[in-house]
Amino acid sequence: MAPDKYEKVSALARRRGFFWPSYEIYGGVSGFINWGPLGSIMKRKIEDKFRDIFLRRLGLYEIETPIISPESVFKASGHLESFREPMVECSRCRRKFRADHLLQELAGLPSQETEKMDLKEIGEALKRHGIKCPECGGELTNPQYFLTMFKTNIGPYSDAIGYGRPEAAQSVFVEFRRLYEQVRERLPTGFAVIGHALRNEISPRQGPIRLREFTIIDLEFFIDPEDPECPHLGMVEDESLNLVLAERRLNGSEEPVKLSVKEALDKGYIMMEWQAFFMALAKRFLIELGVPEDKQRFIEKLPWERAHYSVQGFDQEVYLDRWGWVEVSGFNYRTDFDLKGHMRESGADMRVFKLKKKVDVRRERVIKPVIAEIGKTFREEAPKVLDLISKADPKEAEEQIKRQGYFMAGEYRILPEHVKFEEREIVERGRRFIPHVIEPSFGSDRLAYVALEYAYTVKDGRVILKLPRDIAPIQLAVLPLVQKDGLPEKARELHGILIDEGFMVEYDESGFIGRRYARFDEIGVPLCITVDYQTLKDDTVTIRDRDSWRQVRAEINALTTILRDYFNFKRDFEDLGVPVEEN
Amino acid sequence: MAPDKYEKVSALARRRGFFWPSYEIYGGVSGFINWGPLGSIMKRKIEDKFRDIFLRRLGLYEIETPIISPESVFKASGHLESFREPMVECSRCRRKFRADHLLQELAGLPSQETEKMDLKEIGEALKRHGIKCPECGGELTNPQYFLTMFKTNIGPYSDAIGYGRPEAAQSVFVEFRRLYEQVRERLPTGFAVIGHALRNEISPRQGPIRLREFTIIDLEFFIDPEDPECPHLGMVEDESLNLVLAERRLNGSEEPVKLSVKEALDKGYIMMEWQAFFMALAKRFLIELGVPEDKQRFIEKLPWERAHYSVQGFDQEVYLDRWGWVEVSGFNYRTDFDLKGHMRESGADMRVFKLKKKVDVRRERVIKPVIAEIGKTFREEAPKVLDLISKADPKEAEEQIKRQGYFMAGEYRILPEHVKFEEREIVERGRRFIPHVIEPSFGSDRLAYVALEYAYTVKDGRVILKLPRDIAPIQLAVLPLVQKDGLPEKARELHGILIDEGFMVEYDESGFIGRRYARFDEIGVPLCITVDYQTLKDDTVTIRDRDSWRQVRAEINALTTILRDYFNFKRDFEDLGVPVEEN
Repeated sequence: MAPDKYEKVSALARRRGFFWPSYEIYGGVSGFINWGPLGSIMKRKIEDKFRDIFLRRLGLYEIETPIISPESVFKASGHLESFREPMVECSRCRRKFRADHLLQELAGLPSQETEKMDLKEIGEALKRHGIKCPECGGELTNPQYFLTMFKTNIGPYSDAIGYGRPEAAQSVFVEFRRLYEQVRERLPTGFAVIGHALRNEISPRQGPIRLREFTIIDLEFFIDPEDPECPHLGMVEDESLNLVLAERRLNGSEEPVKLSVKEALDKGYIMMEWQAFFMALAKRFLIELGVPEDKQRFIEKLPWERAHYSVQGFDQEVYLDRWGWVEVSGFNYRTDFDLKGHMRESGADMRVFKLKKKVDVRRERVIKPVIAEIGKTFREEAPKVLDLISKADPKEAEEQIKRQGYFMAGEYRILPEHVKFEEREIVERGRRFIPHVIEPSFGSDRLAYVALEYAYTVKDGRVILKLPRDIAPIQLAVLPLVQKDGLPEKARELHGILIDEGFMVEYDESGFIGRRYARFDEIGVPLCITVDYQTLKDDTVTIRDRDSWRQVRAEINALTTILRDYFNFKRDFEDLGVPVEEN
Repeated sequence: MAPDKYEKVSALARRRGFFWPSYEIYGGVSGFINWGPLGSIMKRKIEDKFRDIFLRRLGLYEIETPIISPESVFKASGHLESFREPMVECSRCRRKFRADHLLQELAGLPSQETEKMDLKEIGEALKRHGIKCPECGGELTNPQYFLTMFKTNIGPYSDAIGYGRPEAAQSVFVEFRRLYEQVRERLPTGFAVIGHALRNEISPRQGPIRLREFTIIDLEFFIDPEDPECPHLGMVEDESLNLVLAERRLNGSEEPVKLSVKEALDKGYIMMEWQAFFMALAKRFLIELGVPEDKQRFIEKLPWERAHYSVQGFDQEVYLDRWGWVEVSGFNYRTDFDLKGHMRESGADMRVFKLKKKVDVRRERVIKPVIAEIGKTFREEAPKVLDLISKADPKEAEEQIKRQGYFMAGEYRILPEHVKFEEREIVERGRRFIPHVIEPSFGSDRLAYVALEYAYTVKDGRVILKLPRDIAPIQLAVLPLVQKDGLPEKARELHGILIDEGFMVEYDESGFIGRRYARFDEIGVPLCITVDYQTLKDDTVTIRDRDSWRQVRAEINALTTILRDYFNFKRDFEDLGVPVEEN
């Protein structure tokens, strides 16, 4: 069988230093990968692109928080209860498996169905389909839940339990009060975390697609639910989205509808404007990573597919050669679920105070106790009585006094001489509420893999990695045409200049020029700069385009400026110099 | 008592979003901090500066690897055995403490002394000094070793033990074979990891200085021990280093000697050229972060202070207000310790092959068995005999045959008819060896804290954070002079332009201009750009310098270019425009 694109990309990635499985010399540990010399640069450039689009341009900020969290955090967030997967064990070889995956792979049940099942139903389905251990054919035990968080101890005390975070979101919620003060109490506001996260998958087997340790990009965006408009909507309202809607999925169709952001909101398909806004930005982000519009879609999660905190969720999916549609990001409307949970668990007040645009003034009936009379009647019980009176409903108390000449405050009979009833003016300048959260969340490992798969191209039997110029790990290669006659010296000098100007540049003089070009095409270097005999005469060099293999000739003096423009998308390849005649 | 600088910096850091302790709403968990909206940008800029100085400019690469590692990695590296600290427990209140820290804090023993002690000596010293529980006065138990790595399980099997990495270096060693191929088998070569690391400290209490989770920057630099020269030495040979040498420390002096890199190498104080080279770069790096030369020193570790893998180690220390000299980086000559360990533990060949410049040809005496004769004499034992003959020393065997007419191969008597002796030509084109490692290693949290402490300045009773312009989290603030007459609109337009040009810019129109300047001085924004009435007339703005409070006036059209130059250190503040007359 011919290798599929995943195999080809993985082989290249391993050979040239993009990514490969970790710990191979120790037999490998599934679910862990390395990003290599080239891959780590590319992955970071993708994360920086997220920072640029979703944070810097929108005036939002990032925070960096620990991966290890104390147990209380995940008690509050609901993860201790919900972050688990059904697992079965083979009673013969003792291997363990995700029970729902066995049903999907061996009985062909769709994930939509298995996600709805509880343990009992899963156990019955395994029996009904006669599923045995896929490794040895042994009998499987009844399914149990396995908590898919990494557990550890913090410090030397065995009761100080910690977990590796399965998402970074909680660290924003836990720190919300302080963050809100640091940005001077404005809403809407948002904080991202870009960092490693850990999910102790039972048996991960999909390379960079399902990892036990991965980089998560969580943006927690806080809004006032009574003021949910997104002022930037104009930037994206005509952007079209391929939506696979829940109502259609329930009728058995996964066919997307193509709607503009505005239409999707008008028809109520997307609940929140900000959610639609972030989805549109995410679509553009993926286009900039090399994934065309028709290879992207947003699939609305069905109620039982959604995370426990979400009331509406869309996954952004990208079409991959081996796996079909694969999630690269999620957009969840988390409401006040998380902040409420931490408020309950920690006692910290997570509410914010917001001034009303118009101050509300209303009049209210209040009870005023007549202290002297209460003292005379109730003596040492007076403080207790005062407290009970303060808790009484003024309207009801007044009515009862009118009707029956007294009212009861607990077990005490309050007579007309003990209290007065008055009108009081109540001025409401603002309100206190728990902000709601819209969360865009990406996985950077998947984004990086997706960018590689879409860049992978074959031309005349040779691989070209057509990475967008701003995420290519190496920007430039400087090459002397031949290894003699002073060309290497001149090329090394130019290499030094470009390094000093901040470019990521490789120098290479080994082998024929054609082989060197091929080597740099294969790792996605957008431009090769060649020093040839003409360079020695007139201080010009050739610049070769990775994708078209065309060449232009430019002056060394102008290089810094025109190359900077090129990498900032202010100049195209054709505008870098004078075309070189084809031989 | 007046707050010390640490308290002042921490208070500012917490209020304005640089750093603060994590999980405060849950009572805090010591050893964990957050880097906030401003702090995370600054910390990342410091890491990017490391990348620029130590990697990009030297043609070295970074990799990104998992934090969770299987047990075998730390068995090979020696951490399972050595990464531990002495701990005592109070038999009354059950609190646990670092035993050596108690000796340092309560009995005044220097760390040099406690680091030499074994468990028994520590126990005796605790008794001798009558040390009790510092919390409740209870009796302490005998000290035990506590493994300061976070332990967990990988996947659902209880025997698959994993640890949080206490250093990132091992992931480079484990992957060395593949990395070496990816960079096309060149030496010297180096790979850095910048990522979170975990040390399960017993009772950390020093804010960002001693953390359980922190960002490590490990650069593993591989050399051929027979070719240890550093070709870049010329770049730094005159750089002076403040060295506190081991031989002086043994004589009780911590007085540094100031030597140039060249002198320190010539006198043999620093073993390896590359080590000296990286130390010089580290000194410059810290100067660029704002730490002057006289607040830095390199202290050579005494044998018992060195990590188990190091044969010579220097710590770069910076003087801090509260703690005195504090380590910010370490430079260890790890030899082939780590690669050898992984070769032994995994069986993978970690040796590299290097062509010799000159092919070695030598002649050697060899034994050639006469198979037919051996078969006749030894029959079914013949294979065993052949094997034994191949292991015999040819010269010795030949001599014995000459002397006594036979030689013994194991228990077999080999006669002259069984063997011939011949000359053979051995051609040695290269050699196989395990590369040696020089390791510069930084802690980014400490670097970030150090930069903040050195930037913290008070002028006229107000705090100015004089951060170097290239690590300041926010580059520019755009401010309308007043909130009326079209100034906010004009300022917002300019803000948009600068955002589009890639700057990190804040816009602020609230409050008096002086208060806004003060707010931006306090968070280290190098330049404030003010839109005033003159802007509406001639499209010029004022630019205000954070440190001198001076102002110049410049044209909006020129801003992008001159500001870019300013942040690249190609232009000083004075060259940004025409000085504004002081009112």
